[in-house]
Amino acid sequence: MPTGVRIDVSPEQITSLRYNFDGLIPAITQDHQTREVLMMAWMNAEALRRTFDEGRMVYWSRSRQELWRKGDTSGDRQFVREAYFDCDTDALLFIVEQEGAGACHTGERSCFFRAFGTDDVVAV
Amino acid sequence: MPTGVRIDVSPEQITSLRYNFDGLIPAITQDHQTREVLMMAWMNAEALRRTFDEGRMVYWSRSRQELWRKGDTSGDRQFVREAYFDCDTDALLFIVEQEGAGACHTGERSCFFRAFGTDDVVAV
Repeated sequence: MPTGVRIDVSPEQITSLRYNFDGLIPAITQDHQTREVLMMAWMNAEALRRTFDEGRMVYWSRSRQELWRKGDTSGDRQFVREAYFDCDTDALLFIVEQEGAGACHTGERSCFFRAFGTDDVVAV
Repeated sequence: MPTGVRIDVSPEQITSLRYNFDGLIPAITQDHQTREVLMMAWMNAEALRRTFDEGRMVYWSRSRQELWRKGDTSGDRQFVREAYFDCDTDALLFIVEQEGAGACHTGERSCFFRAFGTDDVVAV
């Protein structure tokens, strides 16, 4: 049974973050056990409020221009364990319990499943 | 002695990524040992080219509007170990060896050192 954490955040704390011109802030989502980075998506203030209130990740879909409660369609919900903001207050990091197959719509566990190039170790 | 990896990426692969209207793409940087997310910053195509070429993280500073070769001033360089792009080709993930005190200009190891609220575990 997955467990979410309801984080007690003031409305002031949510509005004090630095959103971009579209009112959005990037959110990085990381698995609480493997520490794998699962995805990066965007939130507006309302998505953030709902995420904290429900203990489940809610993003803003830029393509659909609507709130995107992760897992409502796929079943692969994300439950919040910890939440951080960065030194510039313009990026967010969520530690989550990922339900089901994974975060990516392709069926991969992480959206970052494709690596660049062929590695060539060099001394620096 | 830190070791960087020179990743063999074609110019086509760099230009085929989806940059925003400012020509930038978000880059997440993660520690190769602890898997801690160290920071999120932005790259343009030139920063990305240099990162791959030098095996060291090079970002685009939006505040200074210039290339930002991480660690040139602070000494806390970041050496590339692995590099990934996401399913939408609009976000990047770098696994790095972080030199020195850490990634953050405040002296913290990660820029995400501040947590939201007080946790309150709830059943979901």
